[in-house]
Amino acid sequence: MLGNFSYCNPTKLYFGDQALDGLKTELPKYGKNVVLIYGGGSIKRNGIYDAVVQTLGEQGKRVAEIAGVMPNPTVDKLYEGVEIARKHQADLLLAVGGGSVCDYAKAVSVSVNCGEDPWEKYYVRFEEPDCETLPVGCVLTMVGTGSEMNAGAVITNPHTKQKIGHVFRDEKIMPRFAILNPRYTLTVPRDQMVAGIYDIFNHICEQYFSGEDDNISDYLSEGLMRAVVQAGRAANRDPQDYEARSNLMWAATWALNTLLSRGKSTDWMVHMLGQAVGAYTDATHGMTLAAVSLPYYRHILPYGVKQFKRFAVNVWGVDPAGKTDEQTAREGLDALEGWMKELGLVMNISQLGATPDMLEGIAARTIIQTGGYKTLDREEILEILKESLA
Amino acid sequence: MLGNFSYCNPTKLYFGDQALDGLKTELPKYGKNVVLIYGGGSIKRNGIYDAVVQTLGEQGKRVAEIAGVMPNPTVDKLYEGVEIARKHQADLLLAVGGGSVCDYAKAVSVSVNCGEDPWEKYYVRFEEPDCETLPVGCVLTMVGTGSEMNAGAVITNPHTKQKIGHVFRDEKIMPRFAILNPRYTLTVPRDQMVAGIYDIFNHICEQYFSGEDDNISDYLSEGLMRAVVQAGRAANRDPQDYEARSNLMWAATWALNTLLSRGKSTDWMVHMLGQAVGAYTDATHGMTLAAVSLPYYRHILPYGVKQFKRFAVNVWGVDPAGKTDEQTAREGLDALEGWMKELGLVMNISQLGATPDMLEGIAARTIIQTGGYKTLDREEILEILKESLA
Repeated sequence: MLGNFSYCNPTKLYFGDQALDGLKTELPKYGKNVVLIYGGGSIKRNGIYDAVVQTLGEQGKRVAEIAGVMPNPTVDKLYEGVEIARKHQADLLLAVGGGSVCDYAKAVSVSVNCGEDPWEKYYVRFEEPDCETLPVGCVLTMVGTGSEMNAGAVITNPHTKQKIGHVFRDEKIMPRFAILNPRYTLTVPRDQMVAGIYDIFNHICEQYFSGEDDNISDYLSEGLMRAVVQAGRAANRDPQDYEARSNLMWAATWALNTLLSRGKSTDWMVHMLGQAVGAYTDATHGMTLAAVSLPYYRHILPYGVKQFKRFAVNVWGVDPAGKTDEQTAREGLDALEGWMKELGLVMNISQLGATPDMLEGIAARTIIQTGGYKTLDREEILEILKESLA
Repeated sequence: MLGNFSYCNPTKLYFGDQALDGLKTELPKYGKNVVLIYGGGSIKRNGIYDAVVQTLGEQGKRVAEIAGVMPNPTVDKLYEGVEIARKHQADLLLAVGGGSVCDYAKAVSVSVNCGEDPWEKYYVRFEEPDCETLPVGCVLTMVGTGSEMNAGAVITNPHTKQKIGHVFRDEKIMPRFAILNPRYTLTVPRDQMVAGIYDIFNHICEQYFSGEDDNISDYLSEGLMRAVVQAGRAANRDPQDYEARSNLMWAATWALNTLLSRGKSTDWMVHMLGQAVGAYTDATHGMTLAAVSLPYYRHILPYGVKQFKRFAVNVWGVDPAGKTDEQTAREGLDALEGWMKELGLVMNISQLGATPDMLEGIAARTIIQTGGYKTLDREEILEILKESLA
């Protein structure tokens, strides 16, 4: 049953191959001092950097830069960015990149005026900001995380080997605007593209495999999953397929902008396992999810047969005639596995650099969620990680 | 292919049986003078009026009232409300009712500071407001129109026999907040409940039966339609089924809050036909849509066979094996017809008070849309209306 909830997503989205025009509409709403935030420099090679900097110049903005934001942004990088934003007296943080860069900008936003260590406040004690936050805008260049329309920010602490996400409550922490030009995603390497595709799909799964409510979210999720399966196949056949890439971009936004989770329980255990693997291996987020998903889902399936059967029938078209519910349910996961292999996803954590001696540590650092069909204990987590090795 | 578009829906929604608590959070954001807007007085019988007035009192608001907003709000009622809002120097317009009351509040919002006749400006010339508009809040008591999270406002001019909707462009005209308590809808008479259910379903159809893009919207629409079919059946079996009524309420919001139409073409011809019938008969909106839908869809089916086939297979589970595409497509509409009859919808315009002598006038006042699979001419409109008589 749909419970009590509130919903508000005020992010203004500009979508399409002309989306950058939206930046000209948005920039005048903010003060002069902009901090431009980006990653490894691919945006300098493909012309996006130049286009953004030109627009900022035309609008008379004073620009400082935080460059080199890594795929798993670290807490040290966060401290560095906070200093730059403070010195520049930033009026707007403009993230140009994928989910990591956008997450990072949100983490800087809540930290600039925070009177204490933001890691301790937001990622250890999980508190909400009680200081003024800075507005964030986003020019998205990679698809998957949905960071462009939510208030989540994942930060990694390499000292403690922890990769932790905080989904902030206040919608003011969501990007005020996001520029979604599917063309910007065409130059992303194929393995990052497919990792992003699986990230989208898994975001939907995390919200779908919880409860047995038959509510609006289940139906929307099934529609979105079918769309991602179809568009993922098309993009994998031809990564230059603008239509497929634009459908993936739009699906990613809706997979994780809080709509699907309204009024229902959610799981997020695949993300907890994947993030723990990521903290040890620095592997690409979507690949860590892919590598642990099937051992996890096959483990919990007996506790949520009804929903896994529904998934098999409504998403993958499995015919349930003459089968037990569990057989039908398992065929759904087999179909998922087939699609994942078709995309060329990494299907085990060994290939991501995890070794047997790491497993105890990864298991110990895996945050245990309680929303799924079975709350795991540490032994089960270790078992799933062992199964994920090969 | 998803085209260029922008998306921004800042309405804050409070959902669930405790949703009215949200009013306490929202009211302090606005000034002292509130105009309370409602319809025929059912909210006085079921206690909603008292609960809202009590909350307004606790917050120290000065309240004026616009009562008696009719199911098809007239332009004369609009002029009356504008006077009341002006005299009261309204800081907030609080609509308590269904889509008509919420539409009406938005029409007052854009008219209070409008220097000329709002009917001429907004409903004849279709201009956007260039004056200050008033914030609107909404406590929803009837489900269907989606007015709680969009910028649309339908007004009827009985003098010219026109019922016209204007979807304003600026998201500021959307309600700032909406209180969605499914319990408030339990006392709605059965015929109004089912009319609302068909209104939801048809909103999705109007956006689905246009183009052949296979984009995210198609998949989301199919998910939502399946959800509405299921929840509609459950609510029809037992109108007191809170779960079914809450799913319908949430589906209605998403069926018409601009998400489904992003980046794609839309039709809206069923609404144009239904509204023209409504202007002559003053019949319930959802019933007018039901009464003209099947003659219209059967007429245009040959021009959009691919999408009607998809609708048959993905929404109604029609098996296409051994059938022509057109046969499969027609079976989908037969399935829709079966569901509509199950709900007890009015399936012809005679029952709504339309007579053969009205048809020429209705046809002449039907606004012709160009987004569907076939742009109708006046003769085809007349033909469809004739078929809708029986």
